[in-house]
Amino acid sequence: MTYTPPMSNDDFRRAGHELIDWIADYWETVEQRPVLSQVAPGDIRASLPTEPPAEPESWDAIMADVDELIMPGITHWQSPNFFAYFPANASPPSVLGELLSAGLGVQGMLWATSPACTELETHVLDWMLDLCGLPDRFRSGGPGGGTIQDSASSAALVAILAARERVAGQWRMDQMVAYTSEHAHSSAEKGIRIAGMFPEQLRQIPSDGTHAMDPVKLREAMLADIIEDRRPFFVQATTGTTSSTALDPIDEIADVCKEFGAWLHVDGAFAGSAAVAPEYRFVNAGLERVDSYCFNPHKWLLTNFDCSLFWVADRGPMTSALSIVPEYLRNAASDAGSVIDYRDWQIPLGRRFRALKLWFVIRTHGAAGLADFIRNHVHMAQALAERIHGHPSYELVAPTPLSLVTFRHTGGDEDNERIRDTINSDGEAYLTHTRLADQTVLRVAIGAVRTEQRHIDALFDRLDELA
Amino acid sequence: MTYTPPMSNDDFRRAGHELIDWIADYWETVEQRPVLSQVAPGDIRASLPTEPPAEPESWDAIMADVDELIMPGITHWQSPNFFAYFPANASPPSVLGELLSAGLGVQGMLWATSPACTELETHVLDWMLDLCGLPDRFRSGGPGGGTIQDSASSAALVAILAARERVAGQWRMDQMVAYTSEHAHSSAEKGIRIAGMFPEQLRQIPSDGTHAMDPVKLREAMLADIIEDRRPFFVQATTGTTSSTALDPIDEIADVCKEFGAWLHVDGAFAGSAAVAPEYRFVNAGLERVDSYCFNPHKWLLTNFDCSLFWVADRGPMTSALSIVPEYLRNAASDAGSVIDYRDWQIPLGRRFRALKLWFVIRTHGAAGLADFIRNHVHMAQALAERIHGHPSYELVAPTPLSLVTFRHTGGDEDNERIRDTINSDGEAYLTHTRLADQTVLRVAIGAVRTEQRHIDALFDRLDELA
Repeated sequence: MTYTPPMSNDDFRRAGHELIDWIADYWETVEQRPVLSQVAPGDIRASLPTEPPAEPESWDAIMADVDELIMPGITHWQSPNFFAYFPANASPPSVLGELLSAGLGVQGMLWATSPACTELETHVLDWMLDLCGLPDRFRSGGPGGGTIQDSASSAALVAILAARERVAGQWRMDQMVAYTSEHAHSSAEKGIRIAGMFPEQLRQIPSDGTHAMDPVKLREAMLADIIEDRRPFFVQATTGTTSSTALDPIDEIADVCKEFGAWLHVDGAFAGSAAVAPEYRFVNAGLERVDSYCFNPHKWLLTNFDCSLFWVADRGPMTSALSIVPEYLRNAASDAGSVIDYRDWQIPLGRRFRALKLWFVIRTHGAAGLADFIRNHVHMAQALAERIHGHPSYELVAPTPLSLVTFRHTGGDEDNERIRDTINSDGEAYLTHTRLADQTVLRVAIGAVRTEQRHIDALFDRLDELA
Repeated sequence: MTYTPPMSNDDFRRAGHELIDWIADYWETVEQRPVLSQVAPGDIRASLPTEPPAEPESWDAIMADVDELIMPGITHWQSPNFFAYFPANASPPSVLGELLSAGLGVQGMLWATSPACTELETHVLDWMLDLCGLPDRFRSGGPGGGTIQDSASSAALVAILAARERVAGQWRMDQMVAYTSEHAHSSAEKGIRIAGMFPEQLRQIPSDGTHAMDPVKLREAMLADIIEDRRPFFVQATTGTTSSTALDPIDEIADVCKEFGAWLHVDGAFAGSAAVAPEYRFVNAGLERVDSYCFNPHKWLLTNFDCSLFWVADRGPMTSALSIVPEYLRNAASDAGSVIDYRDWQIPLGRRFRALKLWFVIRTHGAAGLADFIRNHVHMAQALAERIHGHPSYELVAPTPLSLVTFRHTGGDEDNERIRDTINSDGEAYLTHTRLADQTVLRVAIGAVRTEQRHIDALFDRLDELA
C-alpha cells in the first residue's frame, strides 16, 4: 500500500501560478460582473454531480467548474460596486499572507506549537495600538494584551465570558444583566444566549437623536435592575453601529459602568479601522477606560477574513474562564508561565497563523499608506452624502461620521425597497437596507479595496435616475 | 486624497508566483529542518522592530524577514517527521482552495451573501456522507444536515447549545448534567463552561481496559443524578481519543442516552477521516443513532485548518439556539425559508468559503485516492506498533486501531520524558506524551502528508538507540 500524491509539487507550482493569475484577472475584471449573484436557491447544487468522484480529476477540470458552475453563484464582495453591509477587504498582500499561512500549515494553539505564530501576533497587536493611537492598557507586557479572533461576534462572546467570570463568585448567573443599545450588533444577544442567559437578561437601551446609546437611560436601567436585586455585569457599546455608524458615547458609558462595576466592551468592528488616520481618532474617545475592545481589519483595513482584533485591559478573567489544560497539551514553556498560549483567549482550541496577513498589510502600506486608504473612502462618502443631501427626492437620515451613507427616498418604504431591488437585480451595484426611526432606509457603505470616485458617481447617477 | 495600492495587480502576480514556488520549495526541504522550533520565549519578538513602519516596505524585504526572522520560530507541522498531537494536513490542492477562497473574499453568513458558498458546502457535506459511509440522517434535504466549523471544539459547543435548547423549556440549567469519558477532549469541559454551567455539571465517566467509556458506568452515573433531581441532557462520546484513539462504544452509549433522553454528540475529530477507507468504517459504528457528529479533515484528510465537519440529525434545536435576525440581515431568500443561512449553525456571524478546499481535495484525489492516503498511514503505524511490541525496552500501552501508536519505555516516567525531550530537542522528529493508567506514555501519531516508511524507520532506529 502506498500513497502517491495526485498533485505533485511541480503540479502545485503550475496550478499555483495559474491560480495567482486567475485571481489577478478576477480582480481586474470583477467590476464587469453583476455584484449580487442572480441565481435562485438550488441552482448551484443542481449543476453539481450528485455523487462524489471515484477517481482523481484534473486541475483543469476543477478550474473549469469554478468558472462555469461556481462563479455564477458568487456575490462579489471584492467588486468596487459593492456597497452592502460593510466591506470585506481582501487586498493583494493579505491574500499572500493567507497563502503563506496555509502553506506553512502550523497550529498556534500553544506558544510551543509554533512560537513565531504567537509572538508575531502579540507583536502586531502591539503595533496596531501605535498605528491607531489606542490606549497603553491593551499593550502586552502589562496585565492586558491583544489577540486575533475570527469575528467580532466571537470577541463579544469572549468579553461576555470574561465579564461573567469576574463576578461568578459573587452573583448567581440568573441575577446578571447585560446592556447594549437598540442599534447594537446582534452579536451581543447571540453571546448572551450562548453564555447561558435568557434574552430577558439583555437590555436594549434606547438611543438618542444620532442613534447612539443614551447613557442617562443606561444608568436608569441599571438602577431599576439593582432595586430588583439584579446585577449589571456587562455593557456592549458600539463605535460605528451597523445601521448608521452611530458612535456610542464611551466616556459617559464608562462613568456608568464604573459606578456599578460592569465590564465595558466596545465593538468597533467597522469604524475602528478609521483610527489609522489621526484625524478620525474620535472613534477611540473613551477607550482608555474600557475593559475590552475589538475592531475588524477584515472589514475595512485591507486584510481578508478572518481577522478581528480583540484587546483586554486585564487578561486574568478571560484566561480563567477559558483555560483547561489536559495532560497531552502540557509543555515546559506553558508550565513555566513564561509564554502566551492563545488557545486560552478564544473559543476554539486550534488556530492558524493569521498574524502573517496583517503583518504583510502593515508593512506593504506603512502607516502613511493605511491612513490614505481610509481617508480616500471617507472623503468619497462625505461628498456622496452632500450630493444626496442636495437631491430633491432623497434625505439623509443619520450623520456620516465616516464612510457609511444612510439615507432614504422621501416617497416612503416601498420606493426605497424598489430602488434597492432594482439596483441589486440589475447587478450594477449592491446595497442593503436597514430600519431607522421605523422607516426603511438605504445604506451605502464605501470601503472596498477597488472603489474609486467613478464608481460612486455611477451609483449616484443611478439613484438620481430611479428617484 | 487618493489611494494608490502599494502592491499593484502586476506586483501581486510576481509576488504570488514567487510565493507559490517558495511554498513548494519549503515542502520539498522541510524534512531537513528541526521539526520543533528551538527558539526560547521572546526570541522572535526581540528580532522584530519595536515600531511599525511609517512608509511602505518592499515585498523582497518582507520575504527576507520571513526567511530570517519567522522561520526559526516555526514548528514544522508539515514535516514528514511530525508525529506530535495529531497531524494538521495541508495538501497542495487544499492550499490552492484556501488561496482561491481568499482571492474571492466572499462572506457566507447568509445564502444571499454568496449562494455558491452555502450550496457547495451543503453539497460537499452530503458527498462526505457517501465517501465515509455515514448515516443518511445527516443528509441535507431532511431535518438534518452538515456544515463546516472552525474546530471540533466549536462543533462540541454548538452541540451543547442545541442539547441545552432542546430541554430549555422543561429543566432549569442548574439541573442539567453532561457526561463524557475521562479520556475525552478538553472541548467538552470548555463547551460546558462557556454554555454557563459549572465544571461540576460535567461527569467524567471511567473507562474500560481499552481506555474507552464504560457504558455501564455511564448509566449508573445518570441514575444517580436522576435520583438527586438532576437531568442528563448531553453526552459527548469520542471515536478516537487524543491520548490513545480509544473508541467509545457508541451503540451502547446510544442505548443509555435513549433511555434518559440525553443528546448524544460524537467527536471523531481525528479518527473519523479513516472511514474514507471502507475497511476502517468500524469508526462509524453506532452513528446512525446519534444526534450530532464531527470529524476534522484538517487533521487527517488533506485539508488545511480550519475544516471541521459537523452534522446534526435535527437542525431545529441548533438554529433555534443560534438564530437572531436583525433588520440589516433580512433578505427575500431567508424570509421565504427556502435556503440555509449557515450563520445560524455556528458561533461567529461571518464565514469564509471553506468548502472550496475540501472540494478540491475530494476531486483531486477521488474516493480511491483518499482511501489510499489513509491506508498508507494505518499500515505504517501498525507495522511500527509491531516493532515496538517486539522491542525489549518498550511496551505498547493501548491498542493501535488506526495510526496512533501509544507506548512507553519500561524504565519509568523519567526515561520516557528523557527520550521525548532528546528526540524533540535534536529536531530530528517531534512527538508528544500523555498519561494513561497514571504513567507517562509516548505518542507517535502518523498522518502527515509527506510521511513515508523511511521516516518511520529512522524514528524507530532512534527510539532503539535511546532505549
